[in-house]
Amino acid sequence: MSRKVFYVSDGTAITAEVFGHAVLSQFPIEFESLTIPFVETTEKALKVIEQINDSFITTGERPLVFHSIVNPEIREIIYNCEGLNYDFLNTFVAPLEQQLGIQAVPVQNRTHGQANASYETRISAINYAMDNDDGQTMKHMDEADIILLGVSRCGKTPSSLYLSMQFGIKAANYPFTEDDMDNLRLPEALKRNKHKLFGLTINPDRLHEIRECRLGNSRYSSLRQCRLEVSEVEMLYKKERIPFVNTTYHSVEEIATKILDKTGLKRHMF
Amino acid sequence: MSRKVFYVSDGTAITAEVFGHAVLSQFPIEFESLTIPFVETTEKALKVIEQINDSFITTGERPLVFHSIVNPEIREIIYNCEGLNYDFLNTFVAPLEQQLGIQAVPVQNRTHGQANASYETRISAINYAMDNDDGQTMKHMDEADIILLGVSRCGKTPSSLYLSMQFGIKAANYPFTEDDMDNLRLPEALKRNKHKLFGLTINPDRLHEIRECRLGNSRYSSLRQCRLEVSEVEMLYKKERIPFVNTTYHSVEEIATKILDKTGLKRHMF
Repeated sequence: MSRKVFYVSDGTAITAEVFGHAVLSQFPIEFESLTIPFVETTEKALKVIEQINDSFITTGERPLVFHSIVNPEIREIIYNCEGLNYDFLNTFVAPLEQQLGIQAVPVQNRTHGQANASYETRISAINYAMDNDDGQTMKHMDEADIILLGVSRCGKTPSSLYLSMQFGIKAANYPFTEDDMDNLRLPEALKRNKHKLFGLTINPDRLHEIRECRLGNSRYSSLRQCRLEVSEVEMLYKKERIPFVNTTYHSVEEIATKILDKTGLKRHMF
Repeated sequence: MSRKVFYVSDGTAITAEVFGHAVLSQFPIEFESLTIPFVETTEKALKVIEQINDSFITTGERPLVFHSIVNPEIREIIYNCEGLNYDFLNTFVAPLEQQLGIQAVPVQNRTHGQANASYETRISAINYAMDNDDGQTMKHMDEADIILLGVSRCGKTPSSLYLSMQFGIKAANYPFTEDDMDNLRLPEALKRNKHKLFGLTINPDRLHEIRECRLGNSRYSSLRQCRLEVSEVEMLYKKERIPFVNTTYHSVEEIATKILDKTGLKRHMF
Protein backbone atom coordinates (compact mmCIF):
# COMPACT_ATOMS: atom_id res chain seq x y z
CA MET A 1 0.00 0.00 0.00
CA SER A 2 1.31 3.42 -0.83
CA ARG A 3 2.08 5.93 1.89
CA LYS A 4 -0.55 8.59 2.53
CA VAL A 5 0.35 12.25 2.12
CA PHE A 6 -1.71 15.30 3.05
CA TYR A 7 -1.08 18.77 1.64
CA VAL A 8 -2.74 21.27 3.94
CA SER A 9 -2.93 25.05 3.64
CA ASP A 10 -4.99 28.04 4.65
CA GLY A 11 -4.43 29.28 1.07
CA THR A 12 -4.44 27.53 -2.31
CA ALA A 13 -2.06 24.76 -1.09
CA ILE A 14 -0.12 25.15 -4.34
CA THR A 15 3.10 25.97 -2.49
CA ALA A 16 2.70 22.95 -0.20
CA GLU A 17 2.11 20.74 -3.24
CA VAL A 18 5.04 22.04 -5.28
CA PHE A 19 7.29 21.70 -2.26
CA GLY A 20 6.08 18.24 -1.25
CA HIS A 21 6.14 17.01 -4.83
CA ALA A 22 9.78 18.12 -5.22
CA VAL A 23 10.84 16.40 -2.01
CA LEU A 24 8.86 13.19 -2.59
CA SER A 25 9.97 12.85 -6.21
CA GLN A 26 13.43 12.04 -4.80
CA PHE A 27 12.02 8.80 -3.34
CA PRO A 28 11.51 5.72 -5.50
CA ILE A 29 8.13 4.80 -4.04
CA GLU A 30 4.49 5.64 -4.67
CA PHE A 31 2.58 8.08 -2.53
CA GLU A 32 -1.14 8.63 -2.31
CA SER A 33 -1.89 12.28 -1.82
CA LEU A 34 -4.83 14.39 -0.76
CA THR A 35 -4.79 18.18 -0.96
CA ILE A 36 -6.86 20.23 1.48
CA PRO A 37 -6.77 23.96 0.65
CA PHE A 38 -8.47 26.95 2.32
CA VAL A 39 -8.36 25.63 5.90
CA GLU A 40 -9.20 29.05 7.27
CA THR A 41 -11.25 28.28 10.38
CA THR A 42 -10.71 26.32 13.60
CA GLU A 43 -13.67 24.19 12.68
CA LYS A 44 -12.19 23.21 9.32
CA ALA A 45 -8.80 22.56 10.93
CA LEU A 46 -10.35 20.17 13.44
CA LYS A 47 -11.98 18.26 10.59
CA VAL A 48 -8.61 17.98 8.85
CA ILE A 49 -7.08 16.58 12.04
CA GLU A 50 -9.81 13.98 12.13
CA GLN A 51 -9.11 12.96 8.53
CA ILE A 52 -5.39 12.66 9.21
CA ASN A 53 -5.93 10.67 12.39
CA ASP A 54 -8.43 8.39 10.66
CA SER A 55 -5.84 7.63 8.04
CA PHE A 56 -3.35 6.70 10.77
CA ILE A 57 -5.87 4.39 12.43
CA THR A 58 -6.87 2.74 9.14
CA THR A 59 -3.39 2.25 7.69
CA GLY A 60 -1.34 1.91 10.88
CA GLU A 61 1.20 4.29 9.37
CA ARG A 62 1.56 7.94 10.23
CA PRO A 63 0.66 9.97 7.12
CA LEU A 64 3.05 12.66 5.93
CA VAL A 65 1.59 16.13 6.38
CA PHE A 66 3.15 18.86 4.27
CA HIS A 67 1.84 22.26 5.11
CA SER A 68 2.26 25.92 4.40
CA ILE A 69 -0.10 27.48 6.91
CA VAL A 70 0.28 31.18 7.55
CA ASN A 71 -2.28 31.61 10.35
CA PRO A 72 -0.56 30.58 13.63
CA GLU A 73 -3.73 29.34 15.32
CA ILE A 74 -4.60 27.03 12.45
CA ARG A 75 -1.01 25.83 12.35
CA GLU A 76 -1.06 24.98 16.06
CA ILE A 77 -4.12 22.81 15.58
CA ILE A 78 -2.63 20.91 12.63
CA TYR A 79 0.63 20.35 14.57
CA ASN A 80 -1.39 18.25 17.04
CA CYS A 81 -2.36 15.65 14.45
CA GLU A 82 -1.08 12.08 14.52
CA GLY A 83 0.71 12.61 11.20
CA LEU A 84 4.32 13.62 10.63
CA ASN A 85 4.42 17.40 10.20
CA TYR A 86 6.69 18.93 7.60
CA ASP A 87 6.24 22.67 7.96
CA PHE A 88 8.45 24.17 5.33
CA LEU A 89 7.25 27.73 5.80
CA ASN A 90 8.13 28.00 9.49
CA THR A 91 11.31 25.99 9.18
CA PHE A 92 12.73 28.79 7.07
CA VAL A 93 10.86 31.86 8.25
CA ALA A 94 12.43 31.83 11.74
CA PRO A 95 16.10 31.72 10.62
CA LEU A 96 15.33 34.35 7.98
CA GLU A 97 13.82 36.64 10.61
CA GLN A 98 17.06 36.43 12.51
CA GLN A 99 19.26 36.99 9.48
CA LEU A 100 17.22 39.89 8.11
CA GLY A 101 16.59 41.43 11.51
CA ILE A 102 12.95 41.82 10.49
CA GLN A 103 9.84 40.14 11.83
CA ALA A 104 7.74 38.25 9.32
CA VAL A 105 4.24 39.64 8.88
CA PRO A 106 2.09 36.64 8.13
CA VAL A 107 -0.65 37.52 5.68
CA GLN A 108 -2.84 34.80 4.27
CA ASN A 109 -3.20 34.44 0.51
CA ARG A 110 -0.29 36.69 -0.24
CA THR A 111 1.90 34.11 -1.95
CA HIS A 112 -0.51 33.44 -4.77
CA GLY A 113 -2.69 36.46 -4.26
CA GLN A 114 -3.78 39.13 -6.66
CA ALA A 115 -2.42 42.04 -4.66
CA ASN A 116 0.68 42.10 -6.75
CA ALA A 117 1.78 45.01 -8.89
CA SER A 118 2.57 42.69 -11.77
CA TYR A 119 -0.70 40.78 -11.72
CA GLU A 120 -2.11 42.78 -14.64
CA THR A 121 1.08 42.04 -16.56
CA ARG A 122 0.39 38.39 -16.16
CA ILE A 123 -3.23 38.49 -17.27
CA SER A 124 -2.35 40.53 -20.34
CA ALA A 125 0.47 38.09 -21.12
CA ILE A 126 -2.03 35.21 -20.98
CA ASN A 127 -4.47 37.05 -23.22
CA TYR A 128 -1.63 37.91 -25.55
CA ALA A 129 -0.54 34.26 -25.81
CA MET A 130 -4.12 33.20 -26.59
CA ASP A 131 -4.65 35.88 -29.23
CA ASN A 132 -1.31 35.25 -30.89
CA ASP A 133 -1.25 31.48 -30.87
CA ASP A 134 -0.48 29.53 -34.02
CA GLY A 135 0.16 32.55 -36.24
CA GLN A 136 -3.53 33.52 -36.21
CA THR A 137 -2.49 37.08 -36.82
CA MET A 138 0.81 38.82 -37.43
CA LYS A 139 -0.52 42.21 -36.32
CA HIS A 140 0.84 42.13 -32.79
CA MET A 141 4.25 40.52 -33.33
CA ASP A 142 5.97 43.81 -32.52
CA GLU A 143 4.56 43.66 -28.96
CA ALA A 144 5.89 40.15 -28.27
CA ASP A 145 8.64 39.50 -25.72
CA ILE A 146 9.40 36.31 -27.60
CA ILE A 147 8.12 34.52 -30.71
CA LEU A 148 8.34 30.72 -30.81
CA LEU A 149 8.70 29.03 -34.19
CA GLY A 150 8.27 25.42 -35.21
CA VAL A 151 6.32 22.81 -37.15
CA SER A 152 2.84 21.76 -36.13
CA ARG A 153 2.77 19.76 -32.83
CA CYS A 154 6.32 20.41 -31.70
CA GLY A 155 5.23 22.06 -28.44
CA LYS A 156 4.74 25.74 -29.33
CA THR A 157 1.32 26.27 -27.76
CA PRO A 158 1.92 24.73 -24.30
CA SER A 159 5.29 26.52 -24.12
CA SER A 160 3.81 29.93 -24.99
CA LEU A 161 1.00 29.48 -22.49
CA TYR A 162 3.38 28.40 -19.76
CA LEU A 163 5.69 31.35 -20.39
CA SER A 164 2.75 33.71 -20.03
CA MET A 165 1.07 32.02 -17.07
CA GLN A 166 4.13 31.25 -14.95
CA PHE A 167 6.44 34.10 -15.89
CA GLY A 168 4.21 36.88 -17.29
CA ILE A 169 6.01 36.86 -20.63
CA LYS A 170 4.24 37.84 -23.85
CA ALA A 171 4.89 34.85 -26.07
CA ALA A 172 3.53 34.60 -29.62
CA ASN A 173 4.03 31.54 -31.74
CA TYR A 174 4.18 30.90 -35.46
CA PRO A 175 3.83 27.56 -37.25
CA PHE A 176 5.62 26.44 -40.38
CA THR A 177 3.20 24.37 -42.45
CA GLU A 178 3.50 21.88 -45.24
CA ASP A 179 2.89 24.63 -47.77
CA ASP A 180 5.87 26.61 -46.52
CA MET A 181 8.31 23.77 -47.16
CA ASP A 182 9.08 24.37 -50.82
CA ASN A 183 10.59 27.70 -50.13
CA LEU A 184 11.04 28.12 -46.41
CA ARG A 185 11.67 31.63 -45.20
CA LEU A 186 10.64 34.10 -42.56
CA PRO A 187 7.59 36.29 -43.12
CA GLU A 188 8.21 40.03 -42.98
CA ALA A 189 6.66 40.51 -39.51
CA LEU A 190 9.08 37.94 -38.12
CA LYS A 191 12.11 39.28 -39.96
CA ARG A 192 11.80 42.66 -38.35
CA ASN A 193 11.51 40.97 -34.94
CA LYS A 194 14.40 38.63 -35.53
CA HIS A 195 16.02 39.17 -32.14
CA LYS A 196 12.84 37.79 -30.54
CA LEU A 197 12.70 34.56 -32.54
CA PHE A 198 13.28 31.25 -30.81
CA GLY A 199 12.94 27.89 -32.55
CA LEU A 200 11.56 24.62 -31.30
CA THR A 201 12.38 21.33 -32.92
CA ILE A 202 11.54 17.70 -32.19
CA ASN A 203 12.71 14.25 -33.26
CA PRO A 204 10.80 13.19 -36.41
CA ASP A 205 9.87 9.79 -34.87
CA ARG A 206 8.24 11.44 -31.89
CA LEU A 207 6.50 14.01 -34.10
CA HIS A 208 5.14 11.16 -36.23
CA GLU A 209 3.70 9.49 -33.10
CA ILE A 210 2.06 12.70 -31.91
CA ARG A 211 0.57 13.51 -35.30
CA GLU A 212 -0.70 9.97 -35.75
CA CYS A 213 -2.79 10.44 -32.60
CA ARG A 214 -4.22 13.64 -34.01
CA LEU A 215 -4.76 12.69 -37.65
CA GLY A 216 -3.79 9.08 -38.28
CA ASN A 217 -2.75 7.72 -41.69
CA SER A 218 -2.42 11.10 -43.31
CA ARG A 219 0.30 12.73 -45.30
CA TYR A 220 0.56 15.23 -42.41
CA SER A 221 1.36 12.49 -39.93
CA SER A 222 3.59 10.34 -42.16
CA LEU A 223 7.14 9.79 -40.98
CA ARG A 224 8.38 10.98 -44.36
CA GLN A 225 6.61 14.33 -44.02
CA CYS A 226 7.72 14.74 -40.38
CA ARG A 227 11.35 14.14 -41.40
CA LEU A 228 11.12 16.61 -44.25
CA GLU A 229 9.55 19.39 -42.17
CA VAL A 230 11.95 19.00 -39.24
CA SER A 231 15.00 18.98 -41.47
CA GLU A 232 13.87 22.05 -43.46
CA VAL A 233 13.04 24.00 -40.34
CA GLU A 234 16.32 23.14 -38.60
CA MET A 235 18.19 24.29 -41.70
CA LEU A 236 16.34 27.59 -41.55
CA TYR A 237 17.23 28.05 -37.86
CA LYS A 238 20.88 27.46 -38.64
CA LYS A 239 20.91 29.68 -41.72
CA GLU A 240 19.19 32.54 -39.90
CA ARG A 241 21.11 31.92 -36.65
CA ILE A 242 17.93 31.48 -34.65
CA PRO A 243 18.58 29.77 -31.28
CA PHE A 244 16.55 26.60 -30.80
CA VAL A 245 15.85 23.68 -28.45
CA ASN A 246 14.75 20.14 -29.06
CA THR A 247 11.55 19.48 -27.11
CA THR A 248 11.45 15.68 -27.50
CA TYR A 249 12.57 14.71 -24.01
CA HIS A 250 11.52 17.82 -22.12
CA SER A 251 8.52 18.91 -20.11
CA VAL A 252 6.80 22.24 -20.60
CA GLU A 253 8.62 23.59 -17.52
CA GLU A 254 11.98 22.57 -18.91
CA ILE A 255 11.33 24.00 -22.38
CA ALA A 256 10.10 27.31 -20.97
CA THR A 257 12.99 27.73 -18.53
CA LYS A 258 15.55 26.73 -21.16
CA ILE A 259 14.16 29.47 -23.40
CA LEU A 260 14.47 32.02 -20.60
CA ASP A 261 17.95 30.81 -19.78
CA LYS A 262 19.16 31.09 -23.37
CA THR A 263 17.53 34.43 -24.11
CA GLY A 264 18.10 36.13 -20.78
CA LEU A 265 14.42 37.14 -20.54
CA LYS A 266 13.51 38.01 -16.97
CA ARG A 267 11.16 35.78 -15.01
CA HIS A 268 8.34 37.44 -13.11
CA MET A 269 6.91 35.66 -10.10
CA PHE A 270 3.28 35.27 -9.05
CA MET B 1 18.71 49.00 -1.34
CA SER B 2 16.77 45.77 -1.56
CA ARG B 3 18.27 42.51 -0.41
CA LYS B 4 19.68 40.24 -3.14
CA VAL B 5 18.25 36.76 -3.59
CA PHE B 6 19.58 33.96 -5.78
CA TYR B 7 17.49 30.98 -6.86
CA VAL B 8 19.86 28.24 -7.95
CA SER B 9 19.07 24.78 -9.31
CA ASP B 10 20.45 22.02 -11.48
CA GLY B 11 16.94 21.76 -12.95
CA THR B 12 14.37 24.37 -13.96
CA ALA B 13 14.66 26.26 -10.62
CA ILE B 14 10.87 26.49 -10.53
CA THR B 15 10.69 24.65 -7.20
CA ALA B 16 13.34 26.92 -5.67
CA GLU B 17 11.43 29.97 -6.90
CA VAL B 18 8.01 28.85 -5.69
CA PHE B 19 9.49 27.93 -2.32
CA GLY B 20 11.54 31.10 -1.93
CA HIS B 21 8.68 33.28 -3.12
CA ALA B 22 6.34 31.73 -0.53
CA VAL B 23 8.82 32.26 2.30
CA LEU B 24 9.85 35.78 1.28
CA SER B 25 6.28 36.95 0.71
CA GLN B 26 5.90 36.74 4.51
CA PHE B 27 8.37 39.63 4.87
CA PRO B 28 7.30 43.24 4.38
CA ILE B 29 10.40 44.24 2.41
CA GLU B 30 11.55 44.24 -1.21
CA PHE B 31 13.92 41.63 -2.58
CA GLU B 32 15.86 41.70 -5.81
CA SER B 33 16.03 38.22 -7.26
CA LEU B 34 18.06 36.42 -9.88
CA THR B 35 17.25 32.89 -11.02
CA ILE B 36 20.00 30.60 -12.27
CA PRO B 37 18.65 27.30 -13.62
CA PHE B 38 20.42 24.28 -15.15
CA VAL B 39 23.61 24.50 -13.09
CA GLU B 40 24.63 21.03 -14.17
CA THR B 41 28.42 21.21 -14.31
CA THR B 42 31.20 22.04 -11.86
CA GLU B 43 32.26 24.83 -14.19
CA LYS B 44 28.84 26.45 -14.15
CA ALA B 45 28.63 26.03 -10.37
CA LEU B 46 31.94 27.83 -9.89
CA LYS B 47 30.65 30.73 -12.00
CA VAL B 48 27.53 30.92 -9.83
CA ILE B 49 29.71 31.07 -6.71
CA GLU B 50 31.60 33.97 -8.25
CA GLN B 51 28.35 35.83 -8.98
CA ILE B 52 27.10 35.30 -5.43
CA ASN B 53 30.40 36.36 -3.90
CA ASP B 54 30.57 39.43 -6.14
CA SER B 55 27.17 40.47 -4.90
CA PHE B 56 28.38 40.16 -1.29
CA ILE B 57 31.44 42.28 -2.04
CA THR B 58 29.44 44.93 -3.88
CA THR B 59 26.55 45.24 -1.45
CA GLY B 60 28.29 44.29 1.81
CA GLU B 61 25.32 42.07 2.61
CA ARG B 62 25.25 38.31 2.26
CA PRO B 63 22.74 37.43 -0.43
CA LEU B 64 20.07 34.83 0.30
CA VAL B 65 20.61 31.68 -1.73
CA PHE B 66 17.59 29.43 -2.13
CA HIS B 67 18.38 26.21 -3.84
CA SER B 68 16.95 22.88 -4.83
CA ILE B 69 20.01 21.09 -6.16
CA VAL B 70 19.74 17.35 -6.61
CA ASN B 71 23.32 16.56 -7.67
CA PRO B 72 25.41 16.30 -4.44
CA GLU B 73 28.66 17.54 -6.03
CA ILE B 74 27.06 20.68 -7.38
CA ARG B 75 25.35 21.25 -4.04
CA GLU B 76 28.67 20.98 -2.19
CA ILE B 77 30.16 23.69 -4.39
CA ILE B 78 27.24 26.08 -3.90
CA TYR B 79 27.35 25.51 -0.13
CA ASN B 80 30.79 27.12 -0.13
CA CYS B 81 29.52 30.47 -1.37
CA GLU B 82 29.52 33.62 0.76
CA GLY B 83 25.73 33.77 0.66
CA LEU B 84 23.27 32.38 3.19
CA ASN B 85 22.23 28.92 2.00
CA TYR B 86 18.62 27.83 2.35
CA ASP B 87 18.54 24.28 1.06
CA PHE B 88 14.97 23.25 1.35
CA LEU B 89 15.36 19.96 -0.48
CA ASN B 90 17.98 18.50 1.82
CA THR B 91 16.48 19.96 4.96
CA PHE B 92 13.51 17.67 4.43
CA VAL B 93 14.93 14.74 2.50
CA ALA B 94 17.13 13.51 5.39
CA PRO B 95 14.35 13.34 8.03
CA LEU B 96 12.05 11.73 5.45
CA GLU B 97 14.64 9.06 4.67
CA GLN B 98 14.67 8.18 8.35
CA GLN B 99 10.90 8.14 8.70
CA LEU B 100 10.28 6.15 5.54
CA GLY B 101 13.22 3.83 6.07
CA ILE B 102 14.12 4.36 2.42
CA GLN B 103 17.11 6.09 0.86
CA ALA B 104 16.35 8.94 -1.51
CA VAL B 105 17.49 8.34 -5.08
CA PRO B 106 18.44 11.75 -6.40
CA VAL B 107 17.56 12.07 -10.06
CA GLN B 108 17.92 15.39 -11.77
CA ASN B 109 14.98 16.88 -13.63
CA ARG B 110 12.52 14.46 -12.13
CA THR B 111 10.40 17.00 -10.29
CA HIS B 112 9.32 18.85 -13.40
CA GLY B 113 10.34 16.21 -15.91
CA GLN B 114 8.40 14.57 -18.65
CA ALA B 115 8.94 11.01 -17.41
CA ASN B 116 5.61 11.03 -15.73
CA ALA B 117 2.76 8.68 -16.57
CA SER B 118 0.31 11.56 -16.54
CA TYR B 119 2.30 13.90 -18.74
CA GLU B 120 0.21 13.07 -21.81
CA THR B 121 -2.91 13.77 -19.75
CA ARG B 122 -1.62 17.24 -19.14
CA ILE B 123 -0.76 18.07 -22.73
CA SER B 124 -4.14 16.84 -23.92
CA ALA B 125 -5.81 18.90 -21.20
CA ILE B 126 -3.97 22.01 -22.43
CA ASN B 127 -4.95 21.31 -26.03
CA TYR B 128 -8.50 20.68 -24.89
CA ALA B 129 -8.66 24.03 -23.05
CA MET B 130 -7.35 25.85 -26.14
CA ASP B 131 -9.78 24.15 -28.53
CA ASN B 132 -12.76 24.65 -26.25
CA ASP B 133 -12.15 28.20 -25.12
CA ASP B 134 -14.87 30.80 -25.33
CA GLY B 135 -17.56 28.45 -26.64
CA GLN B 136 -15.86 28.16 -30.04
CA THR B 137 -17.49 24.78 -30.44
CA MET B 138 -19.97 22.76 -28.41
CA LYS B 139 -18.92 19.46 -29.99
CA HIS B 140 -16.59 18.31 -27.23
CA MET B 141 -18.48 19.43 -24.13
CA ASP B 142 -19.20 15.82 -23.22
CA GLU B 143 -15.46 15.20 -22.78
CA ALA B 144 -14.95 18.09 -20.35
CA ASP B 145 -14.08 17.54 -16.70
CA ILE B 146 -15.52 20.95 -15.99
CA ILE B 147 -17.22 23.73 -17.96
CA LEU B 148 -16.78 27.31 -16.74
CA LEU B 149 -19.53 29.81 -17.46
CA GLY B 150 -19.58 33.57 -17.28
CA VAL B 151 -19.83 36.91 -19.05
CA SER B 152 -17.04 38.19 -21.27
CA ARG B 153 -13.87 39.14 -19.28
CA CYS B 154 -14.81 37.64 -15.94
CA GLY B 155 -11.76 35.33 -15.87
CA LYS B 156 -12.88 32.19 -17.72
CA THR B 157 -9.92 31.81 -20.08
CA PRO B 158 -7.03 32.20 -17.59
CA SER B 159 -8.87 29.90 -15.16
CA SER B 160 -9.43 27.16 -17.77
CA LEU B 161 -5.83 27.35 -18.91
CA TYR B 162 -4.53 27.21 -15.36
CA LEU B 163 -6.71 24.21 -14.52
CA SER B 164 -5.32 22.36 -17.52
CA MET B 165 -1.69 23.41 -17.15
CA GLN B 166 -1.30 23.04 -13.39
CA PHE B 167 -3.72 20.22 -12.66
CA GLY B 168 -4.25 18.35 -15.95
CA ILE B 169 -7.98 19.03 -15.91
CA LYS B 170 -10.00 19.30 -19.14
CA ALA B 171 -11.71 22.64 -18.73
CA ALA B 172 -14.00 24.10 -21.38
CA ASN B 173 -15.55 27.51 -21.04
CA TYR B 174 -18.66 29.14 -22.40
CA PRO B 175 -19.45 32.86 -22.55
CA PHE B 176 -22.83 34.50 -22.12
CA THR B 177 -23.01 37.44 -24.52
CA GLU B 178 -25.12 40.53 -24.81
CA ASP B 179 -27.41 38.74 -27.25
CA ASP B 180 -28.18 36.03 -24.71
CA MET B 181 -29.46 38.50 -22.15
CA ASP B 182 -33.07 38.85 -23.28
CA ASN B 183 -33.79 35.25 -22.63
CA LEU B 184 -30.91 33.75 -20.71
CA ARG B 185 -30.80 29.96 -20.65
CA LEU B 186 -28.46 27.05 -20.99
CA PRO B 187 -27.77 25.64 -24.46
CA GLU B 188 -28.58 21.95 -24.92
CA ALA B 189 -24.91 20.80 -24.83
CA LEU B 190 -24.55 22.44 -21.42
CA LYS B 191 -27.86 21.19 -20.06
CA ARG B 192 -26.90 17.59 -20.56
CA ASN B 193 -23.57 18.27 -18.81
CA LYS B 194 -25.14 20.16 -15.96
CA HIS B 195 -23.16 18.41 -13.21
CA LYS B 196 -19.98 19.81 -14.82
CA LEU B 197 -21.07 23.45 -14.91
CA PHE B 198 -19.35 26.00 -12.71
CA GLY B 199 -20.10 29.71 -12.81
CA LEU B 200 -17.79 32.68 -12.51
CA THR B 201 -19.02 36.11 -11.59
CA ILE B 202 -17.40 39.48 -10.97
CA ASN B 203 -18.31 42.83 -9.47
CA PRO B 204 -19.84 45.05 -12.21
CA ASP B 205 -17.52 47.97 -11.34
CA ARG B 206 -14.44 45.84 -11.86
CA LEU B 207 -15.87 44.34 -15.05
CA HIS B 208 -16.53 47.84 -16.35
CA GLU B 209 -12.87 48.78 -15.70
CA ILE B 210 -11.56 45.68 -17.47
CA ARG B 211 -13.84 46.11 -20.49
CA GLU B 212 -12.98 49.81 -20.75
CA CYS B 213 -9.33 48.81 -21.26
CA ARG B 214 -10.34 46.42 -24.00
CA LEU B 215 -12.99 48.45 -25.81
CA GLY B 216 -13.41 51.86 -24.27
CA ASN B 217 -16.59 53.95 -24.53
CA SER B 218 -18.70 51.16 -25.92
CA ARG B 219 -22.04 49.72 -24.98
CA TYR B 220 -20.14 46.51 -24.17
CA SER B 221 -17.96 48.26 -21.60
CA SER B 222 -20.61 50.53 -20.09
CA LEU B 223 -21.32 50.14 -16.38
CA ARG B 224 -25.01 49.76 -17.20
CA GLN B 225 -24.39 46.80 -19.50
CA CYS B 226 -21.93 45.22 -17.03
CA ARG B 227 -24.51 45.47 -14.25
CA LEU B 228 -27.21 43.98 -16.42
CA GLU B 229 -25.14 41.02 -17.59
CA VAL B 230 -23.80 40.17 -14.14
CA SER B 231 -27.22 40.33 -12.55
CA GLU B 232 -28.84 38.17 -15.26
CA VAL B 233 -26.10 35.58 -15.12
CA GLU B 234 -26.13 35.36 -11.31
CA MET B 235 -29.89 34.84 -11.45
CA LEU B 236 -29.39 31.98 -13.88
CA TYR B 237 -26.77 30.35 -11.61
CA LYS B 238 -29.17 30.53 -8.70
CA LYS B 239 -32.16 29.30 -10.66
CA GLU B 240 -30.23 26.37 -12.12
CA ARG B 241 -28.35 25.72 -8.87
CA ILE B 242 -24.97 26.10 -10.54
CA PRO B 243 -22.16 26.65 -8.00
CA PHE B 244 -20.21 29.85 -8.61
CA VAL B 245 -17.38 32.04 -7.32
CA ASN B 246 -16.75 35.74 -7.53
CA THR B 247 -13.39 36.35 -9.18
CA THR B 248 -13.03 40.05 -8.37
CA TYR B 249 -10.47 39.79 -5.59
CA HIS B 250 -8.85 36.50 -6.51
CA SER B 251 -5.79 35.42 -8.46
CA VAL B 252 -5.90 32.69 -11.10
CA GLU B 253 -4.43 30.24 -8.56
CA GLU B 254 -7.12 31.06 -6.04
CA ILE B 255 -9.99 30.78 -8.54
CA ALA B 256 -8.72 27.45 -9.90
CA THR B 257 -8.17 25.89 -6.48
CA LYS B 258 -11.52 27.16 -5.19
CA ILE B 259 -13.19 25.44 -8.14
CA LEU B 260 -11.40 22.17 -7.35
CA ASP B 261 -12.23 22.51 -3.67
CA LYS B 262 -15.94 23.06 -4.34
CA THR B 263 -16.32 20.38 -7.02
CA GLY B 264 -14.05 17.73 -5.53
CA LEU B 265 -12.17 17.33 -8.83
CA LYS B 266 -8.82 15.64 -8.23
CA ARG B 267 -5.60 17.60 -8.72
CA HIS B 268 -2.86 15.95 -10.74
CA MET B 269 0.71 17.02 -10.12
CA PHE B 270 3.49 17.71 -12.62
